[in-house]
Amino acid sequence: MKIGPMNSNPVDPSQTSHPTTAVAGDDLIRAISGFTDQLLPRDHAIPEIALLYKMMRDYPNRPGKMIRSSLLVASCLAHGGTLAAALPLAVALELFQNWVLIHDDIEDDSDERRGKPALHRLHPVSLAINAGDALHVYMWQVVHQANVPGAFEEFLEMIHRTAEGQHMDLGWVEAKRWDITQMDYLELVRRKTARYTVVSPLKLGALAAGCVPDLRLSDAGMDLGIAFQIRDDVLNLTGDFATYGKEIAGDLLEGKRTLMLVHLLGHADAVTRAKVVATLERARADKIQAEIDFVLEQMRECGSISHAQTLAETHAKRGLETLEAALQPLPGRDAVQQILSTARSLASRVA
Amino acid sequence: MKIGPMNSNPVDPSQTSHPTTAVAGDDLIRAISGFTDQLLPRDHAIPEIALLYKMMRDYPNRPGKMIRSSLLVASCLAHGGTLAAALPLAVALELFQNWVLIHDDIEDDSDERRGKPALHRLHPVSLAINAGDALHVYMWQVVHQANVPGAFEEFLEMIHRTAEGQHMDLGWVEAKRWDITQMDYLELVRRKTARYTVVSPLKLGALAAGCVPDLRLSDAGMDLGIAFQIRDDVLNLTGDFATYGKEIAGDLLEGKRTLMLVHLLGHADAVTRAKVVATLERARADKIQAEIDFVLEQMRECGSISHAQTLAETHAKRGLETLEAALQPLPGRDAVQQILSTARSLASRVA
Repeated sequence: MKIGPMNSNPVDPSQTSHPTTAVAGDDLIRAISGFTDQLLPRDHAIPEIALLYKMMRDYPNRPGKMIRSSLLVASCLAHGGTLAAALPLAVALELFQNWVLIHDDIEDDSDERRGKPALHRLHPVSLAINAGDALHVYMWQVVHQANVPGAFEEFLEMIHRTAEGQHMDLGWVEAKRWDITQMDYLELVRRKTARYTVVSPLKLGALAAGCVPDLRLSDAGMDLGIAFQIRDDVLNLTGDFATYGKEIAGDLLEGKRTLMLVHLLGHADAVTRAKVVATLERARADKIQAEIDFVLEQMRECGSISHAQTLAETHAKRGLETLEAALQPLPGRDAVQQILSTARSLASRVA
Repeated sequence: MKIGPMNSNPVDPSQTSHPTTAVAGDDLIRAISGFTDQLLPRDHAIPEIALLYKMMRDYPNRPGKMIRSSLLVASCLAHGGTLAAALPLAVALELFQNWVLIHDDIEDDSDERRGKPALHRLHPVSLAINAGDALHVYMWQVVHQANVPGAFEEFLEMIHRTAEGQHMDLGWVEAKRWDITQMDYLELVRRKTARYTVVSPLKLGALAAGCVPDLRLSDAGMDLGIAFQIRDDVLNLTGDFATYGKEIAGDLLEGKRTLMLVHLLGHADAVTRAKVVATLERARADKIQAEIDFVLEQMRECGSISHAQTLAETHAKRGLETLEAALQPLPGRDAVQQILSTARSLASRVA
């Protein structure tokens, strides 16, 4: 891995003009949207190509929470870097999220994304696969042009592991595997959500500021990411559509192996287990609400939901402690506070 | 676009140790296979991840003709570069071909690839989409690590245009557009096959040798690529499975807008036209051999096939003349002869 000159406490004054200015959500969203709008092609005389461009812009134009890019920018500021230094990588991280979601929604047979129909419900699947690929290429373009030492390698690592996690996730569904353990589940989450939601944003922010990422950022990011994913699983079952923005119990409709499901299948009696598996194996369109409700009720009775919440809290606590220690020496104090506050809300999110 | 120091007639002796040694097909195939085998991960304790790796290796392990990578290597040698300098980009070009084919086969609903079932016929579609994405990432890894000035930008350009061409191709089928003109068809071919089969390989070879690509390589590549695609279309209708390696008349089963079809629809009487369109609009599984034979017969009677062959010859002749002029001053004479011979066989291929 080629890595340029770095230090862990940069003093280059050009990089520290506003080191302690935390970026407000709206400003960052505007900056990322503006960059993305300039980057992606817009119109074309050939109508088919104009439609491709429109499809590429669809998910980036649906406002997400931009948790990951906010974390990346805050990490850069905390390390003494600037918004300008972090912006290209923040844009690339959003593009990553968007092209992956186009393909994930197809792979998971999802109906909705950010409160609207999934891209492949609006257009033929073939065109949506291709639009995802086209967006993927723009992501690498931005990472390449950002020219931040170590960032290309971090994106490679992040996406290699994400593809492996995604394969595990889909593979379990396709192979009708119901013998997944809590360890298997955590292996998946470490590869996927935890890495791209917390570990990589924290590391990329450090790299954008010209610093070698503290190894504790990875440890903390893994714990916080695991807590985040477990809470997301819980919210998927018990959340409110208006604040959550996804289908409630969509994971059960898709047959996803969540921590609660893994717990329930490991603890239920044989009859209940068989009933739960039969429900989850039904094709999405054939699923019956009463059966979904039964699975939910069993999860509550079996203590699966409270088990998940407890495990999330354990990881959240350890992650926050490690994160505080790792961020303690950094110069951008406002940004450090913002990261800690984001980390707390990620790990204990209610929406 | 950042571009490093270059010259059009390199004299660095380290790059010209074997400037006139043309690479034999088998040697190159071994070199590319060896590099790819080292690059791609092989085994993993988690069985799902081991399967992902196996899927990623499937298409690269099915021997293709490696026309594009041979052309790239020959172009590098012709420009005074070495096999070692060209190899990473040749590998990346093969990886490009392979990940694109995984997704194309899904998008086109193809049954076969290189004489075996398409990847998504061997595994669930969801896993095949993900495996294509995983392979895509390895392509960028190789391009990045090759560190050849200008090569990353050429890959970006090549894939941006390919995605546009692919969208046109699929979009016409999805929108049931039968009013495609010869000009539309050529717009598509310029974006897709012509660019990645000839233009980009010639340019990437020059870049690998440290040269600024002669603009005439692009012009020549477009003409030769158009000739190649038209002949491929003709072979798809009239070829022999054993030498061609794809389904015969697969384009008609998929409803592809080939030059012959565009010609036929532009010249047939209304009754024939309606009959042809009805045949092509049938779902693949419902297509009737007698109707496919009727379309083929009409193409012959209407002169569509001979029109296509004539147009291919015109482009081939102009492309070869331009190519000869562009290659004339280059130092690697054996490689120049190899490129010209490849170009001749591409433009007049019988298999």
